[in-house]
Order: sequence, then structure tokens, then C-alpha cells
Amino acid sequence: MSVVINIDRLMGRIFELGKIGALAGGGCKRLALTPEDAAGRALVTDWFHALGLEVHRDVIGNTWAIRPDSTGRTDGAPVVMGSHIDTVGTGGLYDGVLGVLGGLEVIESLNDAGIETERPIAVAFFTNEEGARFAPDMMGSGVIQGQLDLDEMLATIGIDGITVGAALDAIGARGNEPVGALAPAAYLELHIEQGPVLEAEGLAIGVVTGVQGISWTEFVIEGASAHAGTTPMTMRRDAGMVAAAIALEARAIARDFGPPQVATVGRMEFAPDLVNVVPERATLTVDLRHTDETVLQQAQARLFARAEELAAQEHCTLARRRLARFEPVNFDPDLVEQVAQSATRLNLSYRRMPSGAGHDAQMFAPNCPSGMIFVPSRDGISHNITEFTAPEQIVPGVTLLAEVALARAGYAQNQG
Amino acid sequence: MSVVINIDRLMGRIFELGKIGALAGGGCKRLALTPEDAAGRALVTDWFHALGLEVHRDVIGNTWAIRPDSTGRTDGAPVVMGSHIDTVGTGGLYDGVLGVLGGLEVIESLNDAGIETERPIAVAFFTNEEGARFAPDMMGSGVIQGQLDLDEMLATIGIDGITVGAALDAIGARGNEPVGALAPAAYLELHIEQGPVLEAEGLAIGVVTGVQGISWTEFVIEGASAHAGTTPMTMRRDAGMVAAAIALEARAIARDFGPPQVATVGRMEFAPDLVNVVPERATLTVDLRHTDETVLQQAQARLFARAEELAAQEHCTLARRRLARFEPVNFDPDLVEQVAQSATRLNLSYRRMPSGAGHDAQMFAPNCPSGMIFVPSRDGISHNITEFTAPEQIVPGVTLLAEVALARAGYAQNQG
Repeated sequence: MSVVINIDRLMGRIFELGKIGALAGGGCKRLALTPEDAAGRALVTDWFHALGLEVHRDVIGNTWAIRPDSTGRTDGAPVVMGSHIDTVGTGGLYDGVLGVLGGLEVIESLNDAGIETERPIAVAFFTNEEGARFAPDMMGSGVIQGQLDLDEMLATIGIDGITVGAALDAIGARGNEPVGALAPAAYLELHIEQGPVLEAEGLAIGVVTGVQGISWTEFVIEGASAHAGTTPMTMRRDAGMVAAAIALEARAIARDFGPPQVATVGRMEFAPDLVNVVPERATLTVDLRHTDETVLQQAQARLFARAEELAAQEHCTLARRRLARFEPVNFDPDLVEQVAQSATRLNLSYRRMPSGAGHDAQMFAPNCPSGMIFVPSRDGISHNITEFTAPEQIVPGVTLLAEVALARAGYAQNQG
Repeated sequence: MSVVINIDRLMGRIFELGKIGALAGGGCKRLALTPEDAAGRALVTDWFHALGLEVHRDVIGNTWAIRPDSTGRTDGAPVVMGSHIDTVGTGGLYDGVLGVLGGLEVIESLNDAGIETERPIAVAFFTNEEGARFAPDMMGSGVIQGQLDLDEMLATIGIDGITVGAALDAIGARGNEPVGALAPAAYLELHIEQGPVLEAEGLAIGVVTGVQGISWTEFVIEGASAHAGTTPMTMRRDAGMVAAAIALEARAIARDFGPPQVATVGRMEFAPDLVNVVPERATLTVDLRHTDETVLQQAQARLFARAEELAAQEHCTLARRRLARFEPVNFDPDLVEQVAQSATRLNLSYRRMPSGAGHDAQMFAPNCPSGMIFVPSRDGISHNITEFTAPEQIVPGVTLLAEVALARAGYAQNQG
């Protein structure tokens, strides 16, 4: 048997959640632990309660809702379907949200069909997956899976100068459940691809084999401010010029190493940031990603070495800070195989592929069988208000999620 | 005879004005038409009144105070000593202020000595010389000398989104005198060099022969925001990379053209400015300066052409906006000669030199004999809280200013 999901109900919830923090022209902005995020959490939690699920919240705001097993118990290790509901500053309606509301739809569809399972099934959303306000990203899942330190993360200061702990309390999102309270029997995450591959190849499903490694570095260059007209070029210590040169070096690294190496300079800031003053300080971030840890380390080493050289040439000082670092992750081969076979059984076209983006699933991978399902992103666009996946592209993903979740949770033979 | 100035009185005023908008570590921030600027204007205007001078303020907030001629009249064309009291965001105590308070000291010294003149002598400060909040710089003097349009300038929007007109009214700095009300017989400006030349050569005075040409351009590059991990490098339209490349091109232009060509990228901004998002928009400014208009035009042409190429290579759009453009200015040869001869007469070591920075004096140059006097800047540093010129370096400058002003105003023979 396979579960029949209600796409209209699911789309209705996606659009209703999308109204919170909505941006002109579409998309939305719900940076982690802001009032917008708080409103989103409240709405989704209300939906959890409406289905009579047992809702839990832990010390860093991760929230999950458990559907009991066929004996009515909720204390067994659950099959968890999860993702996140926070967004970047120019986010879309589907990134993260699809995995959470898709999981909720799976549970409601099981209820509608009167299907019970041998294990509990849970749906969850994790705090600050995007890392747009607080670095590193995947913070909530990283903490409860033992890959990030709770106290260190609570003390992390965001781009607006507020700590995670203070932000949690400001919106009342800090729960009581301790780190480790959520221990899944298996973890499944449905997500939009956020890349152009599936659309380009006309495929319905991406069976995700793993996640590429990520290296986020912030560079702060200190020089000397000086008058733009009277200071000879030879006497300058221009922090901005060093920052610009490091940005172009990052691009050169991606070019020289070739795919799948990518490099991105997303943030750049000059101080005092005035037209006629040589910048005394410049700050920039470099995001490096590769599926091979060895290559990623080589890219990082070249970037750090060249940055030092470029700063020295301009007689500037360079400070380097690691914002995030994740090694490439391989998902459980059996679970990956099960997702592929289920896709075949449902007659869904698919390909195996690594994820180009970081996801909460990679935090669970070391501790329990974990896997991901991708559906296409129009034009490969994400982290943008034009992010879009059509309802008819969502149906196969949620149906496959239900199929795999049901298989992992165990169809209870003694159905009422 | 030569005028004896009171350096303690002058330094006292410089330090008192410096307390307004004072920054930790020294220096101050009095951006044009802010509450800090308003407080500075009020203090200096009180000093004008305290000397019984006739105070005037025009429609863009320029303020001047007239000392009557020997017949008690103030309607004759005055010899004007002026500069500005606004600062950049990380300004010092002397840039601009020295020319205004130095002029005030000259007038009080003439009073103390009972010296009367055939022409009135005036001291003035002009609105928004720095251009740090509103572009272009030298706005107040530019408007009243017919080089900038009043209505256009009043409608100019600052970095904080407020127009010049609104800012004037917000601090009550808009006066009644029309454009052109101030028509000097001669214009004299005492200023710190803001460069390293005089100190390096151990000279007391810079006899300024003119001002180098200035070209300020703002570039806005539009690309497409995209996910930093899943978007192949070949599919990116990264506005930030174009901005970084334009910044390095500006540096290359200064290198290839050689001194006195200078190029500065003082402002740089990315949007959305997030670690894991390819920037969809980048804004930067380029400040080009040269003493030769022909060369400056060549530098500008190369910058504009390369910027277009760099944007096209990344499939981004480029918008260019002129923030300021001034041709090189030559000061009145007779006045320059008179400053040099007066320096010789006072046994002051000096050299003739162009100004590397823009000054209000260049706005007056086309309409009346205008000239400038430089005193050394420690380490050539300006637009920085460590900007410094010692009292013993200021005395020669103010004494020379008095000498030249008195010669131009005409020593009245019928003294008391």
C-alpha cells in the first residue's frame, strides 16, 4: 500500500506560513529567532497540536511532535521527518518549510488512512539552520546531535549584536528538553534541490547520497584610514584593496580547482565607508565547498596563505575567524538504497546526487540512519524570493517521504 | 607692521569646538547638518557675535561675519577668510576648523592692535565641505559661487536618506541671504596640508598654487542572488565579484598612470550581504584625482570602459552615477605670489604646491582672487582621529594669513 497525500492541504499551509515575514514581490524573511520566526514557530506548533501530537521543545528551541506507535506509546525511538522554518534575508517559501510541512502532511495522511506503525513517527523543525543571523548554520541540529557545544552556541553573537541565548529568551523559544532528548531510529529530510540539476535533466527526485563539505571563514583586514587625495599610493595601507584581492582569489581558487569546487564571497564591509577616505578596516566572508575533504583542505590552505600574502603586501594586518566547518557527509547506504527502491516502486524518475548545500540531515548522519529526498527547484534558484517548486513536483517528493517513513516505522499488521 | 596673534586663545577655541561630536581616542564626528554640526555652528556663531561682527547666513546655511572697514561700513566687498567646520565620520580637530577659527583669530588680533582696514574683512564657514553625508562635497561654497544649482543641492539625498533641505530645516540652519550675497574682494583659506610633503621636507608653509581635479563615481552592479553551495560557478551572476574587480582596476589605473594620479575605493556594499548567498547587488565608489584635466579624463575613461567589460563578463548590469566632478583649479598668480613674498618677509620656510584635496577656495577661484596657505600635518594624516598639527606649526600659518589679509584689505592710514 502507499499513502495518498493531500496536496491542497499542504500547499495551503506552505502559503499560510509564507505570509509571515512576507517580502514584496514574493518570498519571505524569517531570520532565526526573530519575531517573524517566533510567529512561524507558533503557527506550525498550533498545527502540531491540532493533530493531537505530543509536542516537545529543547534548550535551543528545536521543536518536534510525536505520533504514537500502534500501542499508543510515544517513548520508542521515532522515525523523524524534519527540516527548518527559518529563512535567509531574501528567502523563498519552500527551503526547509517543505521538509517540515511535508512531514506534517505525511502524518495527517496516515491519520486519514487509519494507518498505524510499530514505531512512533515524528515531525521536527530545528533552530537556525540557515546561519544567516547566527553562525554557524545547522546550529540546532548540530547541538542536539553532539557536533556543536550548547553553551558556546548560546553565547554566539549574531549580526545584530544579540546572542542566541538572548534571542531565544526574547521570543520565548527556549524549551526544557535536554540535548539528546531527540534520538531518532531514522532521520528523513525532504528538501528542494536549491540547484539546477534535476530540472536540467527532467527528473522528479534526487536521492541524496551525502552533503559536500563546507568551510566558512571571516577575514578582518586592518590598515590605516587616510585622505583619498593627499596620500600618495605608495604610502597607503588600504584594507579595502586587500579585501577585494582576497575576493578575486576565492574566485580563482574555484576556477583552478574546477567543479564541484565552489567559492562565494557573500559579505563585504568597509570602514569608515566614506567616498574620500582610504578604508582602515575591511571585513569579508569566504564560503568554500567540495565533496572531497582532501580537496577542500587544499582550497582552504591556498586561500589562507594568499590572504596573508595580500595583506602583507599592503602592510595591513589580517585576522581570520572560522564561522563554520563541516566535513563532507555520506548518508547511510541502506537508507539511500531504500529511498531509491521506493522511488522505483512509485515509478518516479530519479538520480543519486550529493547535496550542494548543508542540511540538518548531516548532523544526524553520524548517529542514526539518515537520508534526504530532493525535488526540483525552478532555474535552480533558492535563497531568493523567486524560489519555486510546483505542486505537481512536490507530490512525488512527499509521497516518497511517506513511503520511506512508513517502511522505516513499520506498518503495524494489527490495524484496528 | 605685522599682526601678533594669540595662539593660546586660538588653541582654546579649537579644543572647545573639538569637544562637540568628540570621538573616543580623539578627533570628532560632525557630519554636515547633523545635531553635532548644529552645535558647532552655534558655538562659532556666538564667537562671531562676541566680537561684535555683523553675522550673515544664506539659503544653504553658509555663515559669515563682517568686520567693518575703517569708516564703519560693512557693505564693501570684503576680504574673506574662510573654510568649514563639518567633518568626516572619523575626523580630526584641524581640517577646516583651522581656517575658520584662524580667520577669527586674525580679526580679534586686529581688534587688539587697533588696526583698521580700507576694506571690510570677513570670516566664514561653508556648508557640507566634506561631502561625507551629502555628495558632492564643497556644496555650500559651490552653490553661492554659481558652480552648483541651489534647488538641485537642496534636493540631494544623503547616505541616511534625508535631503539637504530637510537637514537644513531640521537644525534651523537655513538663512535668508540669497545665493551671491557673499562677493569677496579676495578669498583666503588657511588649511592643514592633509598630506606628508611639508613634514617630509621640514617646511613651515605650503603656498598653494591650485587644486587637483576630482572625479567621484558611484557604481551599482546588479546580478542575481543564488545559493552559495548549489549554484555552479559557471551559472553565477555575482555582483560582488564585479565590484571587487572594479576596485582592483582603480588601483591598477593609479599604478599605470603614476603620480600624481591617485585612485580610492572608499565605499563598498553588498546585498543581501549574507555568508551563503551570492550577492545580487554591489555598490562601490571610486575617487580619481589628478592635477592635469586631460590625464584625469583618460583615467576616468579607462575606469568606465573596464567597469562595463567586467560587468558584462559576469552577465551583470552596471549603473554609473557621478557624485562629484571638479576640474583642476589654478589660483590667482598675483595672490599666490603675494603669499610667497609675505612668507619670505616673515622668514617662513615654504614651497609652492598643488592641493591634493578639494577645498572651498576652488569654488571662489573663478570669481575673485583666491589662494590658500598650508601648514604641516603630522605623518600626513587627516580624516582620522590622529590628525595633528602642533601649535608652533599653526602660529606661522595664522600670522601669514593675517599678513596677506591685511595687505589685501588695505591698512587704513587714518588710524585712531
